[in-house]
Amino acid sequence: MSQKVTISTVAQHARVSRQTVSNVLNAPHIVREETRRRVQEAITELGYRANQAARQMRTGRSRLIAVRIEPTRDGINGSVLDRFLHGLTETAEGAGYRVMLYTATDAHQEIDAFDDLLGAYDLDAFVLTGTERGDPRTAWLAGRDVPFVTFGRPWDAPEPHPWVDVDNAAGTAQATRHLLATGHRRIGYIGWPLPTSAVGGERRSGWHETLREAGVDPGGLDRETVDGIAEGERTMRELLAAAEPPTAVVCASDSLALGALQAVRGSAAYAPPAGPPTPGGPVAVVGFDDTPVAAAVGLTSVSQPLGVAAARCVDLLTGVLDGQPVDSPVLLQPSLVRRQTA
Amino acid sequence: MSQKVTISTVAQHARVSRQTVSNVLNAPHIVREETRRRVQEAITELGYRANQAARQMRTGRSRLIAVRIEPTRDGINGSVLDRFLHGLTETAEGAGYRVMLYTATDAHQEIDAFDDLLGAYDLDAFVLTGTERGDPRTAWLAGRDVPFVTFGRPWDAPEPHPWVDVDNAAGTAQATRHLLATGHRRIGYIGWPLPTSAVGGERRSGWHETLREAGVDPGGLDRETVDGIAEGERTMRELLAAAEPPTAVVCASDSLALGALQAVRGSAAYAPPAGPPTPGGPVAVVGFDDTPVAAAVGLTSVSQPLGVAAARCVDLLTGVLDGQPVDSPVLLQPSLVRRQTA
Repeated sequence: MSQKVTISTVAQHARVSRQTVSNVLNAPHIVREETRRRVQEAITELGYRANQAARQMRTGRSRLIAVRIEPTRDGINGSVLDRFLHGLTETAEGAGYRVMLYTATDAHQEIDAFDDLLGAYDLDAFVLTGTERGDPRTAWLAGRDVPFVTFGRPWDAPEPHPWVDVDNAAGTAQATRHLLATGHRRIGYIGWPLPTSAVGGERRSGWHETLREAGVDPGGLDRETVDGIAEGERTMRELLAAAEPPTAVVCASDSLALGALQAVRGSAAYAPPAGPPTPGGPVAVVGFDDTPVAAAVGLTSVSQPLGVAAARCVDLLTGVLDGQPVDSPVLLQPSLVRRQTA
Repeated sequence: MSQKVTISTVAQHARVSRQTVSNVLNAPHIVREETRRRVQEAITELGYRANQAARQMRTGRSRLIAVRIEPTRDGINGSVLDRFLHGLTETAEGAGYRVMLYTATDAHQEIDAFDDLLGAYDLDAFVLTGTERGDPRTAWLAGRDVPFVTFGRPWDAPEPHPWVDVDNAAGTAQATRHLLATGHRRIGYIGWPLPTSAVGGERRSGWHETLREAGVDPGGLDRETVDGIAEGERTMRELLAAAEPPTAVVCASDSLALGALQAVRGSAAYAPPAGPPTPGGPVAVVGFDDTPVAAAVGLTSVSQPLGVAAARCVDLLTGVLDGQPVDSPVLLQPSLVRRQTA
């Protein structure tokens, strides 16, 4: 196994001091042409890579960004932020940054984590996920001049800040338009309780506005529940037991949609919807987030461009850290992935 | 918003110097009783929390550990290491450590990442996943006295090191015994190509040894393929087309099992196996890793205790870093989660 090549190895090889090697790397204009050439030859020959510590010394940056990792839930919706995290780590590395993780169960605990992390590590910036109305996290960071971007728009933050988001309303609108186009008129919605989720409000409004524009009455088919497969199943059973049940349902998540699908399929063998909807026939179901579970069970679902979102977050952050004007906000379009259930 | 409470705030409040506050925190025995009491009252009153930087100064530790994040694949098997990462981050935080991420596509790229990270950040230790025969990573770290633990046994590493693993062979053995107990005698196996995966060899051997001990001939029902749903489906079609097809199959992953299930179900409505197996009847399928997809489609699967594995990795690491004798190796038992498919 070869020895690690360091500045000392390069200095020895080029018969110069360590300081001269350092100068060639950091301030080449102050080094004599002949010396510079000799050092650069040694660097090439030995395969020396200037390491992060050296870059950090030059730039005064730690090149370290922090992001929260969510607690494991049902493993379905959690996979969305895991995919964002994978994308973030990969694109951050490409830009010369490393990602550090922290956990927090609410915004106030997250602020405690900021405080701890900033006291302990020389962090360059934070990436926040899951912004909400009255979010105390952005104000806390802005008040301390800590650079950050959010994956999620600033719903009502007083100060502007760079953000990337996916147009959630456009996602459920696409799903609803697809159902209308395939002949559905009784299209229900199973979503999250409104006051607790700004994203949930967006997803609901995409469904509601699309029906309204099409002149279709959404009356009585709008349901709220906390997220989960069992909750989706129970809520769908309620909808199916109504006097005029829906022929299709749009859900705020794949977990809810999977539950809804189980309610629709019941214990009988299931034939996917084909042709125009018939009263009492198989009910079409659309989920949100295009999780691996959706792909596995053939669930039609709205897909967020998570890799692109992560890359744009890194773009914005490096822009902010380099003192460049940043091209924010970034609002990305989701797309409907059609499978067997709608 | 309240100002951040620092050592200076505490010093001002208690009318002592910053050094005295620092002494109370780090060497209380050298501080006069009356002064110590006054500083401690100020700490309580102001809600001062000694931060990580202060602890780091005392201990000479960064309290930072690094772990690789895998590239996103089909989102099914990838979820296993994501669950491990969640557990690791949570238990590491409980022990006062933060987790930093890096990516690498092979062992040599990972060693480059070690080199970069150690040059750039004051890391305490690494957690390695996915150990293999002839693994160059452990030798590299051991040769530089960098503390590490592996999630995965040292298949042939010359030097012992602390490790945590799950008994993979015990998992497929449990699955095979369950199939034998429910009357199956033609039990196939779909696994990974042997020379490329030590874990794959373990999983295969659990199936093979269990059949051998039961006096059941595994002949002709053993298949190898790279991982993936499409690969599982294709391989299962081959098995089903054999002169004497299996009545059950054990798979090395949920991805392969999901593909196998699709081959079994074909396009017809599927009735899960019930009662003793009948030639040409529905074929039982068992997966490995109990992923969210397995839960969603009712796939019987072997479950690894990933949260426990992560916690034991942190236990071992803190032991190593504290210079304590560590209780390694740790070999954890998987369990069979029975659902509809077997």
